[in-house]
Amino acid sequence: MRKGKVISLALNFDQHGPQGAKSKYPALGRINPLHTMLRTGTDAYSGVLDKRGIRAADDMVVMPLQCGTQWDGLGHVFYENFMWNGYDCREVTSAGAQKCGIEKTKNRMVGRGVLLDVPRVLGMDILPDGHAITGAELDKTAAAQKVELRKGDFIIVRTGQMEAKLAAGSWDGYPGGDAPGFSFETLEWIQRTQLAALASDTWGCEVRPNESEAGINQPWHWITIPIMGMTMGEIFYVKELAEDCAADKVYEFLFVAPALPITGAVGSPTNPLAIK
Amino acid sequence: MRKGKVISLALNFDQHGPQGAKSKYPALGRINPLHTMLRTGTDAYSGVLDKRGIRAADDMVVMPLQCGTQWDGLGHVFYENFMWNGYDCREVTSAGAQKCGIEKTKNRMVGRGVLLDVPRVLGMDILPDGHAITGAELDKTAAAQKVELRKGDFIIVRTGQMEAKLAAGSWDGYPGGDAPGFSFETLEWIQRTQLAALASDTWGCEVRPNESEAGINQPWHWITIPIMGMTMGEIFYVKELAEDCAADKVYEFLFVAPALPITGAVGSPTNPLAIK
Amino acid sequence: MRKGKVISLALNFDQHGPQGAKSKYPALGRINPLHTMLRTGTDAYSGVLDKRGIRAADDMVVMPLQCGTQWDGLGHVFYENFMWNGYDCREVTSAGAQKCGIEKTKNRMVGRGVLLDVPRVLGMDILPDGHAITGAELDKTAAAQKVELRKGDFIIVRTGQMEAKLAAGSWDGYPGGDAPGFSFETLEWIQRTQLAALASDTWGCEVRPNESEAGINQPWHWITIPIMGMTMGEIFYVKELAEDCAADKVYEFLFVAPALPITGAVGSPTNPLAIK
Amino acid sequence: MRKGKVISLALNFDQHGPQGAKSKYPALGRINPLHTMLRTGTDAYSGVLDKRGIRAADDMVVMPLQCGTQWDGLGHVFYENFMWNGYDCREVTSAGAQKCGIEKTKNRMVGRGVLLDVPRVLGMDILPDGHAITGAELDKTAAAQKVELRKGDFIIVRTGQMEAKLAAGSWDGYPGGDAPGFSFETLEWIQRTQLAALASDTWGCEVRPNESEAGINQPWHWITIPIMGMTMGEIFYVKELAEDCAADKVYEFLFVAPALPITGAVGSPTNPLAIK
Repeated sequence: MRKGKVISLALNFDQHGPQGAKSKYPALGRINPLHTMLRTGTDAYSGVLDKRGIRAADDMVVMPLQCGTQWDGLGHVFYENFMWNGYDCREVTSAGAQKCGIEKTKNRMVGRGVLLDVPRVLGMDILPDGHAITGAELDKTAAAQKVELRKGDFIIVRTGQMEAKLAAGSWDGYPGGDAPGFSFETLEWIQRTQLAALASDTWGCEVRPNESEAGINQPWHWITIPIMGMTMGEIFYVKELAEDCAADKVYEFLFVAPALPITGAVGSPTNPLAIK
Repeated sequence: MRKGKVISLALNFDQHGPQGAKSKYPALGRINPLHTMLRTGTDAYSGVLDKRGIRAADDMVVMPLQCGTQWDGLGHVFYENFMWNGYDCREVTSAGAQKCGIEKTKNRMVGRGVLLDVPRVLGMDILPDGHAITGAELDKTAAAQKVELRKGDFIIVRTGQMEAKLAAGSWDGYPGGDAPGFSFETLEWIQRTQLAALASDTWGCEVRPNESEAGINQPWHWITIPIMGMTMGEIFYVKELAEDCAADKVYEFLFVAPALPITGAVGSPTNPLAIK
Repeated sequence: MRKGKVISLALNFDQHGPQGAKSKYPALGRINPLHTMLRTGTDAYSGVLDKRGIRAADDMVVMPLQCGTQWDGLGHVFYENFMWNGYDCREVTSAGAQKCGIEKTKNRMVGRGVLLDVPRVLGMDILPDGHAITGAELDKTAAAQKVELRKGDFIIVRTGQMEAKLAAGSWDGYPGGDAPGFSFETLEWIQRTQLAALASDTWGCEVRPNESEAGINQPWHWITIPIMGMTMGEIFYVKELAEDCAADKVYEFLFVAPALPITGAVGSPTNPLAIK
Repeated sequence: MRKGKVISLALNFDQHGPQGAKSKYPALGRINPLHTMLRTGTDAYSGVLDKRGIRAADDMVVMPLQCGTQWDGLGHVFYENFMWNGYDCREVTSAGAQKCGIEKTKNRMVGRGVLLDVPRVLGMDILPDGHAITGAELDKTAAAQKVELRKGDFIIVRTGQMEAKLAAGSWDGYPGGDAPGFSFETLEWIQRTQLAALASDTWGCEVRPNESEAGINQPWHWITIPIMGMTMGEIFYVKELAEDCAADKVYEFLFVAPALPITGAVGSPTNPLAIK
């Protein structure tokens, strides 16, 4: 921390989120957050709360945990019948995840953060859909940014896709559609860098169309989560951070992005903070 | 940050939370979080996900924003027909808070944190219900802990009540019941210390029974939120932090407790982190 | 009842409902029903339920009460500050309707039903958007169908709009868009026929664009619900019933359409049955 | 239908329902309905709706489908890996029931209803917990009531347990607790009578403690639903109907109890009507 600036990497959670946009990939229950009120200022104004002796508003949310800026927990993806650490996938039942619940990360999502602004280093506004980011491109970006990657880093990779969708005023094609993202070969790079977590500004981190044969969807996820035990951040809003880093040439920061410790959850919305 | 230890001040969000416990104060829709699954590991095991080419679990939550460890936003309490900054309370409708939504705090809940362990300094295990914590007691606690309070601090005050409830295995009496908490006269102390936010381990921060005449509930809230514009943290789990501070005698830390930026919300669950 | 045939007038409640379709009228929280599971057959298959001694599935729904085939209760619309019977509109708070809750209709939605198939009598497949159905057209339809209208009838009016949307495979324009529907002058006809309730196959019964000056939306609703105390059915699926009536020339039936008695609700989903 | 009287057999759906009561049987996500508002009369009074040109209230519900008066669908219970008709239990996934969804019953829950008021015939106020109702008792009740049972009947059996809980003002022990109910041997009686559906006023129809060895819970359910294909009604409110039948000595009626056709649901709340 040098200048005391705090930048949030969260989209606001509301009906303007990416769920419900056109997609060739059915959403299976992912909707945008539905925020509703339990008591209101209009109740207060109407005098109906005064019998309780306080004029207060309350609210609630119905929210798929993967609907916006979020962490994928280790219970989110299985390889065959197993999740990370060899746990049986049947540990994730309708009652939630008995192993690898997101609450286990309660005090873990804190560390050194690094932004890798790939399109800026490659001289592009944004990476095009289908651009498979390689380990070499990530290394090149770090080098150009003069930032060293260290074991235990939280690495945030900008593709610019979210900014393009926001500028267009439509999320169509974002959830489950074609996207720039990590190449399958970055698995080796992840292993080598020994990062703590990896996040990006796309729906699913991984390049789409996927680099896989028919019938295999998100192959990089098959490995990163259940085999490598990597926590993954998706739908991160990085525009403001990227602009700040470009301005001050400092691409490292304190990164604090606590999950909500919902017991047995396989993911969590988060409001990730970069503190510079 | 000195020793790199991260301590979460959140209760896990689940059916074991304080909502639904016996209370003389009706809850008006506050339930414990309802976490449900949209896809499971048992689906994966059963082979029914394979047609999508990935074995993944998803989940959702139905959650009153005031059900557990949480921030009260500035739209949470009104004084007569007004909220903080003189905004009309009718800005908080069934469609949410058009002013003072919690999303406005998106990058604000970061700063120096201080724990005030009042019962420990007073030589008690926990403060009894009805104990009205005074400004003098808070100052005495800070002095005994050899920690200076500074403008902009996030001050976390331990009463021990939550620990007693957890030890008893029952939340009965916690939500809306009698409790130790801030005396009405701490308003002057809050003004003087120029703190950023104040939090405690009780349901409502304020001493209960309240120091008010009949028909006025939570009088301290009437002032702190709409008049003083103070953000308040409730249902914070401080046991682990208190033990750590007692052990190393260091009562200050970096405090990071981002709200989920749910647009128009009057509060938010949070996973507050003390980073020492 | 003559032939013992039962015809449902409900759309299935699912993600394929009309909410979320393109509309110039913002939906204010109306989403399609979100049906999720609490226990599944895949849990059963995976053996994780056996410790309970029974293999069973459970489920839940998150459902705006106005999202599909539904009754508008008498607490749904206000005229200035009043609802039906002169009750103050402030009886409908965030805690629900203290007056005119839908549970009051628990045993009331039973009676003689009559289908008025207006487009069929007018020689049209469907009524075009903006067609304002008049009392004269309704009388003409009844006469052509050789069915007498009696006091206390449940009158179901077909416009055909829903069938056109279903045939098109898109609800765009249905929720809040232009539609055929009741003319403002049918208020007199409603008064004269002394019907028990009136329903149609459109989103809002009333012709759209409305017959009103700027700034007044759904003027017919302003009168029917709070002034006349009429319960209204919307988004009724009448295709099968209309075909059956056209075939047997019998346009009357026993009509049973119980609301779910959700205490304090201002409306209810329903599965209306025509029993012929 | 003789006298034109309509009696509802539904409990109101609200926070006063049986879920959350003390029970030795964990509820796995079954909560009482949570009814919340999307727009209110207090919004109307406050003038904040006028920009839409209509003062209207809307609402929503979060409701486990098994939380109150309800039908168990044929996808609710499995025998080993199978549900009714030999369908694989993996047809009921997190995405709902692909077979035997409750929507299939859309137009089916109509027929002759018969009330069997067992305690009245046995000379008791209510049947005690653990009383296993036999086929002989059911036949004796029908005979004493001078009502003939016919193929295709909807048979409603009163135990009185619900009335006792309502009178006591507490549901403790009701959900999953000891109860009077059907003996295992009534399976033969069900087969013989060829009834359409069977309902009762208890949480689970079946006698509890169950007539089974350790580790088998609700053995009668294991057979009735997946093997016999019987639809079952639970938590029916029969007090008013029983009093009416005792008064007029007529124990038969038209019974109409449509499920909400929620696609893929394994059960449904219902407002069953007895029309005499």
